[in-house]
Amino acid sequence: MSEFNPVDHPHRRFNPLTGKWILVSPHRAKRPWQGAQETPSEEKLPAHDPDCFLCAGNPRIGGEKNPDYTGSWVFTNDFAALMPDTPQAPENGDPLLRCESARGTSRVICFSPDHSKTLPELSTDAIAEVIRTWQEQTRELGQSWPWVQVFENKGAAMGCSNPHPHGQVWANSFLPNEVLQEDRMQREYFEKQGSPLLLDYVRRELADGQRTVVETEHWLAVVPWWAAWPFETLLLPKTAVLRLNELSAAQSSDLAMALKKLTSRYDNLFRCSFPYSMGWHGAPFTGDSDRHWQLHAHFYPPLLRSATVRKFMVGYEMLAESQRDLTPEQAAGQLRAVSDIHYREAN
Amino acid sequence: MSEFNPVDHPHRRFNPLTGKWILVSPHRAKRPWQGAQETPSEEKLPAHDPDCFLCAGNPRIGGEKNPDYTGSWVFTNDFAALMPDTPQAPENGDPLLRCESARGTSRVICFSPDHSKTLPELSTDAIAEVIRTWQEQTRELGQSWPWVQVFENKGAAMGCSNPHPHGQVWANSFLPNEVLQEDRMQREYFEKQGSPLLLDYVRRELADGQRTVVETEHWLAVVPWWAAWPFETLLLPKTAVLRLNELSAAQSSDLAMALKKLTSRYDNLFRCSFPYSMGWHGAPFTGDSDRHWQLHAHFYPPLLRSATVRKFMVGYEMLAESQRDLTPEQAAGQLRAVSDIHYREAN
Ligand SMILES: O=P(O)(O)O[C@H]1O[C@H](CO)[C@@H](O)[C@H](O)[C@H]1O
Ligand SMILES: O=P(O)(O)O[C@H]1O[C@H](CO)[C@@H](O)[C@H](O)[C@H]1O
Repeated sequence: MSEFNPVDHPHRRFNPLTGKWILVSPHRAKRPWQGAQETPSEEKLPAHDPDCFLCAGNPRIGGEKNPDYTGSWVFTNDFAALMPDTPQAPENGDPLLRCESARGTSRVICFSPDHSKTLPELSTDAIAEVIRTWQEQTRELGQSWPWVQVFENKGAAMGCSNPHPHGQVWANSFLPNEVLQEDRMQREYFEKQGSPLLLDYVRRELADGQRTVVETEHWLAVVPWWAAWPFETLLLPKTAVLRLNELSAAQSSDLAMALKKLTSRYDNLFRCSFPYSMGWHGAPFTGDSDRHWQLHAHFYPPLLRSATVRKFMVGYEMLAESQRDLTPEQAAGQLRAVSDIHYREAN
Repeated sequence: MSEFNPVDHPHRRFNPLTGKWILVSPHRAKRPWQGAQETPSEEKLPAHDPDCFLCAGNPRIGGEKNPDYTGSWVFTNDFAALMPDTPQAPENGDPLLRCESARGTSRVICFSPDHSKTLPELSTDAIAEVIRTWQEQTRELGQSWPWVQVFENKGAAMGCSNPHPHGQVWANSFLPNEVLQEDRMQREYFEKQGSPLLLDYVRRELADGQRTVVETEHWLAVVPWWAAWPFETLLLPKTAVLRLNELSAAQSSDLAMALKKLTSRYDNLFRCSFPYSMGWHGAPFTGDSDRHWQLHAHFYPPLLRSATVRKFMVGYEMLAESQRDLTPEQAAGQLRAVSDIHYREAN
């Protein structure tokens, strides 16, 4: 029997933030693909689309008229998943049919009035304004709610129903599953090791480099050791920060650069507008001790081998555990091999 | 403030098998959809396709020739995610970059030589043979491996790369995440309540009926109280059974009927071949105590409102928690409202 090596041999890696394992089957990347093809949107969109519900000055889905906004702009979702005033559900103590009420809000964040541009195609100044909006929303909603989820679904493959550049922010009266789990795992690590998990991790990755995709003065983006999606990345500040709204001015403006570079590398990989869901996790607003927390963003992109071939997290993945077809080091290598200048802006 | 009612008010329901909550936002179903459209495959396929890697007598992807099989037929995946003889990975004790080796096998199960038929379109005799094959595989692989995952990805929307009716079975040298979690949760419940969680649950659902989709002599299919996917179902034997290969002859043959009815209702709902991932969970083959276990199958179908509009588990769902747009009771009602005879067989 030959010696174990992670490039040829199936193995499992452990995600210390969720406590879950990921099955890595690197040799599977050779498998030919005959299944569903994604349709990358290659048409050039107009800067203003009269039928778009998010363009400046247009009527929205509920009939209301959008203002003539110039930078980024926030409004409450016309079909919000959560509302601030839902009546309290009775606690029934039933161990099998358990239910509780959920309150909060959900808002849409338009990144720019320009219908045709996605995040990597905006100027760093415009991205800096998006970051400012994320920070303001986090600060404001964090005063009323224990959890504020900032996220973006990009591309039809990720359930985005409108190509106009936008993200969302949902506030919750509860800590959602993923957050509760990251809170637990970071707390346990802190109690054992005496330092925040993700601060230790960022130091390890800075020293290593195999999984690095983008490094700027204050930020590091890696394909994490435990990535489940083929080109998943984790974006981390290099020093201790609890929440998006607690970044220094220097960290905030450097973040615009890091985001532009990371999302440009994504688009350059398969020369398409790279779909993903991304979002921020920071310390909750519960008032509990939070020294174990470190701010970070997750990028979960579905594409595997081209603009049209995605990874499906289905059967085995849903019933047993996540499985990936190339190593995180290979994925990071591919992302490093392309330019960090967007292909539409190059030349 | 009005009184709480689950049809109008957002709430969370608890999944006692996974320990996770699901956000239910019933009023969201009214939201118009302008995003991605699935392409239902409505063309009638030939009974034998000379280019199909799974049809009887054809060459496979690796060049090998398929036998002239008549019923169901099993072979080792040409691009298996797991192999039986992977060398042992060194245990490094690293809390951040943790890795372990993974062994096992992955096999393909052809349900029928008829390229054109899906599970609900097979005769109950043919379905009974598929069940027999699942049982034989479970028994055989369970002698060497602690976990045997039987599953089916149906439809291009669920990453199925070939319409020929087939499923898979993967054996693992480890207990995958989902299984470990179900094991934990069922054990805790058993220790507290003194009876198996899913046996208690099936009794509750038999007495209630609001979430019932199909009931046969020995089986019950419900949209579980905690369903995440719009038309997710849980298929349960009515009495204690640990594993697929431990069903009585009567339970096995009645299962063919239950499966035919359940999958026919799915296809009838939007008059299309309803995509899903399904799979079986039973007590692991670890030799540990397993009185807390109850055999069950999960069906995870993605469609939400029509043959072309699916639910996306993206942004908020990936970063925070699963969210659904109609109540489980509403979903069960819709599935009950259609016939349990397949629309192509009805006429
Ligand atoms: O082996 P298949 O059916 O070609 O592949 C499908 O099922 C596998 C197991 O759920 C997944 O890992 C793949 O992403 C999916 O495309
Ligand atoms: O609100 P949107 O962007 O229209 O909807 C999208 O994001 C939501 C939050 O992740 C999901 O629940 C929806 O399934 C998805 O289509």
